[in-house]
Amino acid sequence: MSSAFGNCIKISIFGQSHSESIGVVIDGLKAGFKLDMDAISAFMKRRAPGQNAVSTPRAEADEPHIASGLVDGVTCGAPLCAIINNTNVRSKDYSKLKEVPRPAHSDFPAFVKHSGFNDIRGGGHFSARLTAPLCFAGAVCMQLLQEEGIYIGAHISSIKDVHDLPFDSVSVSKAELEKLKNAPMPLLNQETWALMEKTVLDAKAQGDSVGGIIECACIGLKPGIGEPMFDGIENRISQAIFAVPAVKGIEFGAGFKAAELFGSENNDSFYFDGGTVKTRTNNHGGILGGLSSGMPIIFRAAFKPTPSIAKEQDSVSLTAKKNEKLKIEGRHDPCVVLRAVPCVEAATAIAIYDLLLESRR
Amino acid sequence: MSSAFGNCIKISIFGQSHSESIGVVIDGLKAGFKLDMDAISAFMKRRAPGQNAVSTPRAEADEPHIASGLVDGVTCGAPLCAIINNTNVRSKDYSKLKEVPRPAHSDFPAFVKHSGFNDIRGGGHFSARLTAPLCFAGAVCMQLLQEEGIYIGAHISSIKDVHDLPFDSVSVSKAELEKLKNAPMPLLNQETWALMEKTVLDAKAQGDSVGGIIECACIGLKPGIGEPMFDGIENRISQAIFAVPAVKGIEFGAGFKAAELFGSENNDSFYFDGGTVKTRTNNHGGILGGLSSGMPIIFRAAFKPTPSIAKEQDSVSLTAKKNEKLKIEGRHDPCVVLRAVPCVEAATAIAIYDLLLESRR
Amino acid sequence: MSSAFGNCIKISIFGQSHSESIGVVIDGLKAGFKLDMDAISAFMKRRAPGQNAVSTPRAEADEPHIASGLVDGVTCGAPLCAIINNTNVRSKDYSKLKEVPRPAHSDFPAFVKHSGFNDIRGGGHFSARLTAPLCFAGAVCMQLLQEEGIYIGAHISSIKDVHDLPFDSVSVSKAELEKLKNAPMPLLNQETWALMEKTVLDAKAQGDSVGGIIECACIGLKPGIGEPMFDGIENRISQAIFAVPAVKGIEFGAGFKAAELFGSENNDSFYFDGGTVKTRTNNHGGILGGLSSGMPIIFRAAFKPTPSIAKEQDSVSLTAKKNEKLKIEGRHDPCVVLRAVPCVEAATAIAIYDLLLESRR
Amino acid sequence: MSSAFGNCIKISIFGQSHSESIGVVIDGLKAGFKLDMDAISAFMKRRAPGQNAVSTPRAEADEPHIASGLVDGVTCGAPLCAIINNTNVRSKDYSKLKEVPRPAHSDFPAFVKHSGFNDIRGGGHFSARLTAPLCFAGAVCMQLLQEEGIYIGAHISSIKDVHDLPFDSVSVSKAELEKLKNAPMPLLNQETWALMEKTVLDAKAQGDSVGGIIECACIGLKPGIGEPMFDGIENRISQAIFAVPAVKGIEFGAGFKAAELFGSENNDSFYFDGGTVKTRTNNHGGILGGLSSGMPIIFRAAFKPTPSIAKEQDSVSLTAKKNEKLKIEGRHDPCVVLRAVPCVEAATAIAIYDLLLESRR
Repeated sequence: MSSAFGNCIKISIFGQSHSESIGVVIDGLKAGFKLDMDAISAFMKRRAPGQNAVSTPRAEADEPHIASGLVDGVTCGAPLCAIINNTNVRSKDYSKLKEVPRPAHSDFPAFVKHSGFNDIRGGGHFSARLTAPLCFAGAVCMQLLQEEGIYIGAHISSIKDVHDLPFDSVSVSKAELEKLKNAPMPLLNQETWALMEKTVLDAKAQGDSVGGIIECACIGLKPGIGEPMFDGIENRISQAIFAVPAVKGIEFGAGFKAAELFGSENNDSFYFDGGTVKTRTNNHGGILGGLSSGMPIIFRAAFKPTPSIAKEQDSVSLTAKKNEKLKIEGRHDPCVVLRAVPCVEAATAIAIYDLLLESRR
Repeated sequence: MSSAFGNCIKISIFGQSHSESIGVVIDGLKAGFKLDMDAISAFMKRRAPGQNAVSTPRAEADEPHIASGLVDGVTCGAPLCAIINNTNVRSKDYSKLKEVPRPAHSDFPAFVKHSGFNDIRGGGHFSARLTAPLCFAGAVCMQLLQEEGIYIGAHISSIKDVHDLPFDSVSVSKAELEKLKNAPMPLLNQETWALMEKTVLDAKAQGDSVGGIIECACIGLKPGIGEPMFDGIENRISQAIFAVPAVKGIEFGAGFKAAELFGSENNDSFYFDGGTVKTRTNNHGGILGGLSSGMPIIFRAAFKPTPSIAKEQDSVSLTAKKNEKLKIEGRHDPCVVLRAVPCVEAATAIAIYDLLLESRR
Repeated sequence: MSSAFGNCIKISIFGQSHSESIGVVIDGLKAGFKLDMDAISAFMKRRAPGQNAVSTPRAEADEPHIASGLVDGVTCGAPLCAIINNTNVRSKDYSKLKEVPRPAHSDFPAFVKHSGFNDIRGGGHFSARLTAPLCFAGAVCMQLLQEEGIYIGAHISSIKDVHDLPFDSVSVSKAELEKLKNAPMPLLNQETWALMEKTVLDAKAQGDSVGGIIECACIGLKPGIGEPMFDGIENRISQAIFAVPAVKGIEFGAGFKAAELFGSENNDSFYFDGGTVKTRTNNHGGILGGLSSGMPIIFRAAFKPTPSIAKEQDSVSLTAKKNEKLKIEGRHDPCVVLRAVPCVEAATAIAIYDLLLESRR
Repeated sequence: MSSAFGNCIKISIFGQSHSESIGVVIDGLKAGFKLDMDAISAFMKRRAPGQNAVSTPRAEADEPHIASGLVDGVTCGAPLCAIINNTNVRSKDYSKLKEVPRPAHSDFPAFVKHSGFNDIRGGGHFSARLTAPLCFAGAVCMQLLQEEGIYIGAHISSIKDVHDLPFDSVSVSKAELEKLKNAPMPLLNQETWALMEKTVLDAKAQGDSVGGIIECACIGLKPGIGEPMFDGIENRISQAIFAVPAVKGIEFGAGFKAAELFGSENNDSFYFDGGTVKTRTNNHGGILGGLSSGMPIIFRAAFKPTPSIAKEQDSVSLTAKKNEKLKIEGRHDPCVVLRAVPCVEAATAIAIYDLLLESRR
C-alpha cells in the first residue's frame, strides 16, 4: 500500500506527475464545516512552481476543483475529493530515464519494485508534484485546526550554511505565525533571504543544487493529545513528514543536540503560569511520552539537495547492464526547501488533526 | 489507540511497568517457522537491566514465556503471545508522582489525557519497561529476516560528546554486525567504552544523566522494498523508532548533514558491481523515494538524557496548583543508550519485516 | 470513516449522487497488469440504468475515465483512480426530502448523523449510484482474479416469489458462469424472466416495488485462503456486500437452512477426486473456519424492495416536528435486484482479491 | 492477519484450544472506567461448558485474570489484557485429526493454509474456545454501552425446528432484555426449552447434532450511528458475528423475508412519538443506509449443527491420499446454540461500541 494516511480521517492521494490528474480523497471529515477555498488556494500557491528565481519555471495553475464532499461549499460528511489537472506536461524530457536512473532519485528502486512498469515520466507517483494534493489535504486540516485554536507555521531554518533565526520555542505565538505566513519569504529574519537566494542561484549557475532545513511550530494544542508507543505525536508527524520528498531527517525540540546535554540541562522545569502548567524551557519540543505537553510543538526536518542537477553524473544503463554517464535535461528547482515549507505545514496539520480526533473518542 | 503496529504483521503490546505482566501479541506470522528461543533470550538480555554499572539495579529476569502461537517451538499460524511477568516491583517509590509530575516525563500529559486515571507506578504504560515486549517482537522478526539474508545491527554512536566510529555505510557486512553483537560493548571501537563509562558514571555521581546517539544498519534488503509516500522505509522506521522512549530525532544516511551539501556532493553515483547496481557512496542511507536501493540502510536516532535524575528539580503540584520542588527517588539508568541498542534493532526489524511482507502480496 | 475497504488493496470510494463526479481510488494494485477497459465498460453497463423496462429511465453513460495509475493501459503501481461524471442530474426532484425523510431510506439517520448537512440530493453519498465506482473496482479485481483462474458470477435467485434455479453448488463451472454473463438476463433459467418482469411491472403499475435474492458463486479459489476469526471469507464478503444498498441478509452454503439440519446431514463428506480433496455436497458453501475449502464459494444476499415508491406514505416533517404525508416524485427502479447483480459480483471480487493477496505475504 | 477487530478500540485475540493460555488485548479503552468483574464472570459463565445436559462436559473455570490495563479495578488507558489459562486439556483425543480432517471443520483448509503446521489440537486457533476471550471483550464493551443506556440481549430463536417467540422488534425494552438474561434459559418463552432439550438429546443419542438460530436485539442506540458503505452497522456486526464459529448466515430486520415483500409492506412509516421520530414497524431492523434509526437493532444469526458428531463419517487421509472413514472421539456439544448466545451478544457489543466511538470523533 502506500499513499494513504490517518486513523480517524483517511487521506488517500492519487496521481503521477504526468497522469491526467492528481488528487486526494479525504474520508472522515465532519459535516457542516465551511471550507474557505480562497485560503486553500492561497496556501497551495505557496507550494506552486514558477513563482521566483529559485523555483522551476514549470507553471501549473494547481487549482484544485472539488469533485465531491461539499454542498454549497460546506462539508456534507461524504468523502471530500479534490482533483488537480496536470496541464503543463512535457513528457519528452524524461524519455531516457527508465534506462538510466537518476542518482538520488526513486527511479532505480521504483523500476525494480514495479518490474519496470513504474511511470517514470516526471518521477511518476514519486514526484514532488504529489505534494500538491498533500497540501490541499493539509490546508483543509489546518482550517479545521484553526477553528480549535491550533495554528501551524514553518519557516526556512537554513539553506545550505545560511541560517535564519530559530523559533522561540517557549513563546512562539499565533501573531508570529501569521506574520510569517504573510511575509515575503517564510523567514523569521527577512534579511537572510538575500544570502539564501545567492546561495541557491550560485549553485544553479554551477549546474548544482542545495538543501536545507525547515523548522515547524504548532501552537494551541492542549496537553494530553497523542497516543502511546507507535502513535505518539513524534511517530505520526514523522510518518507524515517523510512523505515529503527529499526529507532525510527529523528532530523534535532539542533533537540531536539533546544527546549532548546533561539531564539537568535538558529537563524542562514545570511551573504554573496562572492556572496553566508550562515549562520554562522547551527542549522537549512540546512532546513528552508521545503526548502533547501544552507547550509549542517544535521540530525540524532536513532536506537533501535537489537530486536533479544539470551537471553530468555517473549512473548505469539498466538495459545494457553497464556504467553510463547521465546528463539530466528538463526543469528543476535548484533548491526544494522554499516550496517545501507549506508541504511541511500540511503534513503536520494532517498528523495533528488525526490525533486530535483520536483523542476525542 | 496506541500500542499496535504493522500492516502485514500486527504487533499489539500490553502492560504497565507495575502491572501483573507485560507482553505482546504478534498476529500474522507465517506458520512453520522454528523460533530460536535461546537467541531470543540472549537478545532480550542485552536490554535487561542490572547488568553493569551504568544500568539500573532493578533486576528482572525478563524471561518471556509463550502463551500461544507455537506448537513444539514452531509457529502454527495463530497469533504468537509472549508474556513477561513483573516480578521485581517496588511501587512505593512512585507514590508522590501523580501529584508532582517529573520533568521531561510523560507524567503530566498522561495525567491530563487519562483524567488522572493513568497508572503512574513506574511510568505505567509509558515506561521504558515496555521495550521488553518490543524486543521480543523484534527478536522474532529478526530471525525471520535472517532467514532471508537480512541482518540488523546497531551500536552506540555517541554518549554525550564521546563518539564511536561510524559504520562504513557502503560496505558494512554481516560479519561486522555479528562481531558487533558478540562484542563486550555495542561499539565499533571497544576502546571508546572507557571514556563513555566514565562520562556516565561522572554524571551519575552528580545526580545527573546523559544521552547519546545510536546508529543502526540493516543489510541484505533487496532493492524496491517499501511503499510510496506514507509507508516508505523512512516513514515506517521512524514511526517504530519513536516508540522507544527518549528518542527525539532520527536521520537517514547523511541526514541533517545532507542539508549542507551540494547536490553534486550528496548524490550517490550508481555503478555496476558485477550484475548488481550499487552506489559508490551512501548518503541516501539505502533509501530512495522511500524504497530500498539495495545499499545498507543506515540511520541514527538521538536519545535525550534519562529524565529521572537524583538532583532536585522544579516542578508543580497538580493538586495544590502551585510550584513545588521534586526530588526523584528510586532506581534509574543514568544513561539509557546502552540498553536502548537492542530496542532500536528490534523496532527496525519490526518495521522492515512488515514492509518486506507488504512487498510480496 | 466509511467508504474505504481492504487490507492489501485499499478501495476508497467518493462522491454523491449529485456531486460533480463520483469515483474510486484503488491503492495497492500490482504494476504490470493490462486492464481490459472494454471488459470493464461491459461490466459496468450491466449496472447502468435505463436499459430495460424494470430500471429507472435516468440515463447515465457511467463511463469511467482513468485519472491516474495507468501508463499505456497498464498498471504502474501508483493508485488507480477512476472518475465518473454525474451528467444527468435533476436535483429539483429532491427538494423536500431533507424536511420529510423517505421511509426505508437513509435520509433520517443521515440527517441526524450529519446535523442536517448531509447531501440529500439523490440520497447523496448513500445513493445506489455509488455502486458505479464499486463496480469499477470490482471489475478490476475480477480481471486480476481471472488471471489466477478464479471466476465470480451471480444470478437473480428470486424476485419476490418468483424463483430461478439454484447453482449446482458442487459442480458450478467456469463455462456456466460465462454463459450466465452472456445470457440476456442473469438467470440460470431464462424462462423465469417473463414472470419476474411481470411481477416487477405489476408492482410498478401499483406505484409499488419488489425485492429479491441474488445468488453468487466464486470458483477456482484454492483451499486455505482467508484469515481466522474476523477476517474469514464470510466476514469479509459480508462486510463488502452490505455496502450494496438494500441488502438485509446474507447466507453462505446451506445458510439458514443449515440451522434445521442434523450434523450428519449438513456435514459435507471429504473424498479424493484424483489428487484433489473435494466434498460430495457443499452445504458449507466452500468455506470452513472462514477459510476456502477449494469447493465453490456460494452465498445468497437478500434485497429489500426499492424504498422509493410512488404510493403515498406516512412520514414526518423534521422541521415542523409533526407527522406528514409523503409522495415521492422522481425516477426509481421498481426493483433493484437486476442491476444489483454486477454489484454483488463486484463486492465479492474485491473481498476475495484482498484476501488472496493477504494469503501471500 | 486475523484475529484483530475494531477501528477505535482494537481487539486482538490470541490462543489455541490447547495452548498454555488464551486471551485478548483490548486497546483504546478510555481511562477511568470501573470494570464490574463479577458481571464479567457471570457473563462468561453463560458461555462456559459443562453446565447442562446439552453442553460438552469439558469443565473449564474460564476465569479471566487481568494482566494489564487496570489500576484498582479501573481502566488506566493502557491496553487491557485478559488471560484465561487452558487447564483441562486432553490432547490425546485429537492425535489422528491432522491426517484425517473432520468434515465441516477447519481442519482441512487450515492444514493447507499453514502447510501442516497448524495446531490441530482441539481445533487450535479455530476452536470455539476462542469465543471465551471474545466474550470477555464483549462483556467489557457491554458495560461501557450500558453506561450510555445501550443494552444488548439475545435469545435462542430456534433449535432445529423448535421455535421460540420472536422479539417484538418495535417495543423490545431494557426490562425484557434483563428478564431474558436472568431467565433459566435464554428464551422468551421458557416452555420451549423442554422440546428444544429433547431435540438436542435425541440427536446426541443418535451420535448426531443440531443447529439453530439466535436472535439479538440492541436498544438505546441513538439515530445516526454507523458509517456509510463498508462500515455500516450491518457490515460491522456481520464481520464480528461470523467470527463466532458455525455461523452461516445473518439477516437484519425482516431479512430474507423482505425479499418477498412489496415496498409498501416493507417500508416502515415514520411518526413522531412525543419529540422522537420512530417507525410503526421495524422491518429495517433499526438500520437504514447502514446507520442506526433509533429503533431497536434486530438481527438473526444461523448456526449450523455441531460438525463433530459421534457417527462415523467419510473423510480422507491427507497423508495416504485416499478416502478413509473417520470416527470422532472426544467431548463435543451436540448443539452449540445455547452457549453461543453470549457470544453473539459479545460480538455485537464490540461492533456497536466501536461504531459508537467512531461517531464521536
